[in-house]
Amino acid sequence: MKLASLKHGRDGQLVVVSNDLTRYTAVASVAATMQAALDDWANARPALEAVARELQAGGGESFDQATCASPLPRAYQWADGSAYVNHVELVRKARGAELPDSFWTDPLMYQGGSDSFIGPRDNIAMADEAWGIDFEAEVTVVTDDVPMGVSAADAVAHIQLIMLVNDVSLRGLIPGELAKGFGFFQSKPSSAFSPVAITPDELGDRWKNAKVHLPLLSSLNDKAFGKPEAGVDMTFDFGQLIAHAAKSRPLCAGTIIGSGTVSNLLDGDPGKAIGDGGVGYSCIAEIRTIETILDGKARTPFMQFGDRIRIEMFDTDGASIFGAIDQVVEKYPG
Amino acid sequence: MKLASLKHGRDGQLVVVSNDLTRYTAVASVAATMQAALDDWANARPALEAVARELQAGGGESFDQATCASPLPRAYQWADGSAYVNHVELVRKARGAELPDSFWTDPLMYQGGSDSFIGPRDNIAMADEAWGIDFEAEVTVVTDDVPMGVSAADAVAHIQLIMLVNDVSLRGLIPGELAKGFGFFQSKPSSAFSPVAITPDELGDRWKNAKVHLPLLSSLNDKAFGKPEAGVDMTFDFGQLIAHAAKSRPLCAGTIIGSGTVSNLLDGDPGKAIGDGGVGYSCIAEIRTIETILDGKARTPFMQFGDRIRIEMFDTDGASIFGAIDQVVEKYPG
Repeated sequence: MKLASLKHGRDGQLVVVSNDLTRYTAVASVAATMQAALDDWANARPALEAVARELQAGGGESFDQATCASPLPRAYQWADGSAYVNHVELVRKARGAELPDSFWTDPLMYQGGSDSFIGPRDNIAMADEAWGIDFEAEVTVVTDDVPMGVSAADAVAHIQLIMLVNDVSLRGLIPGELAKGFGFFQSKPSSAFSPVAITPDELGDRWKNAKVHLPLLSSLNDKAFGKPEAGVDMTFDFGQLIAHAAKSRPLCAGTIIGSGTVSNLLDGDPGKAIGDGGVGYSCIAEIRTIETILDGKARTPFMQFGDRIRIEMFDTDGASIFGAIDQVVEKYPG
Repeated sequence: MKLASLKHGRDGQLVVVSNDLTRYTAVASVAATMQAALDDWANARPALEAVARELQAGGGESFDQATCASPLPRAYQWADGSAYVNHVELVRKARGAELPDSFWTDPLMYQGGSDSFIGPRDNIAMADEAWGIDFEAEVTVVTDDVPMGVSAADAVAHIQLIMLVNDVSLRGLIPGELAKGFGFFQSKPSSAFSPVAITPDELGDRWKNAKVHLPLLSSLNDKAFGKPEAGVDMTFDFGQLIAHAAKSRPLCAGTIIGSGTVSNLLDGDPGKAIGDGGVGYSCIAEIRTIETILDGKARTPFMQFGDRIRIEMFDTDGASIFGAIDQVVEKYPG
């Protein structure tokens, strides 16, 4: 089943979307919003699936990804892991910092702001290019209610939906914030999620061991930038990430858990840009890190006003699964 | 005006409470929940105030603080500052760390989990006493929609409600998490807010310069523990804290901004326990810090199963303003 939230009020209008992303059916009679559906998922899911089956048979309205808000336009929780430890190690290496051994066994995760997501086709409005505007392409899952202390194995059954995200990051603000010791705040502005959220069964055998086994594609200004395999080098699966988040408190239905920037190690090679035959990168910070390691300094600039980022994932038949996050950076006039 | 959310479903039932906290009126015809009222505050506020005036004249149901959820049982954002820099300096001093000068000019703030608050009279259920269970007594404000890049001066007008909070903290988990560099997560379990949220005008001249000018009382196991003045030694006012949070993204209506643990410096004296004639402390970590500085080691233990913490604020006539947070720590059986 595929779901989306058309832009409408604060929380959008929940719709069921056809598998090929061309048509939708409004489902106000089941749940007005995505959060309302997740709050009553045991009842809402079968009712939504009945609508989805009917829609697959034909009918519905014409679906336009540009009319979508993020599937949860605002959420009660957005907790982002860093499951591709390779990415973390590279970034640290570039600044000469060692990676503690514990990073391979204890997930890194931060509490993100979840009150003001922007839509998948909304501009990224920022006051200052000097903040070092970067994208981060990631896979995320949405849970139902998760009890405190859940095991990683039991956590997997709480994964109800899968989405992509552009976890916009302000690289220029990160060092100062992390040095203060309390994690990210200003350096992580509003994220944007894929137009469509899907149930895991939509991925068939590409959803396995609580990981998505498909490449995640990023293009910067219409040029391929990254296509790493999301199922490769993911040190912690989504069950482990959820269990980490739920160690000392329950998680409310509608909690979004992120994978962190998708990154492949490539047999010990520090990685190659996509133009050099490599899988490339899911954020600019990583290619800058590689450039720094190889050449002593970073060449690729962070995003400037007018730059465009597109993030998408295709199934083995070449069809877009989640629709595309496609955003342009613009100057915030405020 | 005073508001509360009676326990009911996921988001509680919004009620108007009499000034003396003895009676309430349900207001489903205005807004079913606190979040719904905040989402439409310009219309909801006058309608709720009309109910409040009627309630002050008499009538209503009997109000019992024990039936309350946190005013926002779950919220889209909980951003907690550390405005009492004195507290931060003391904690650092105890572990031999210097306080960077920037801490006096640039607010420290972390993104808290907001999806699973517990009620003001709910037990604090934790799996392990060894996690170092502590309370933190703080003042918080709730905003309406705040534009990105708001100034500290303009931010003050966005403060719609004031509450108290027990920002439960797991001291044993903090050093490990902060060492990883991404801030708190497991070390900050579910917070509990005061039974009642009030509009700033309820404080009269005790609300001044975007600070609350009254003592915040904490009792541990029915023994007075702290009574610092919330308006004293608050380096950053709530306008500055909101502006800090909104630097790179807008804040959604219903955003909760915390003051951080209330702490007074007392003319350069590192502070005295309340039994020694001082104003005491708003968390156990701070008295342990003082003990460490004075005696070389901490004597006061963190909370054990069965321990009770009560947090309350009284007006100049001795009446409870927000009702009391009153919680017992218990073993989580999961």
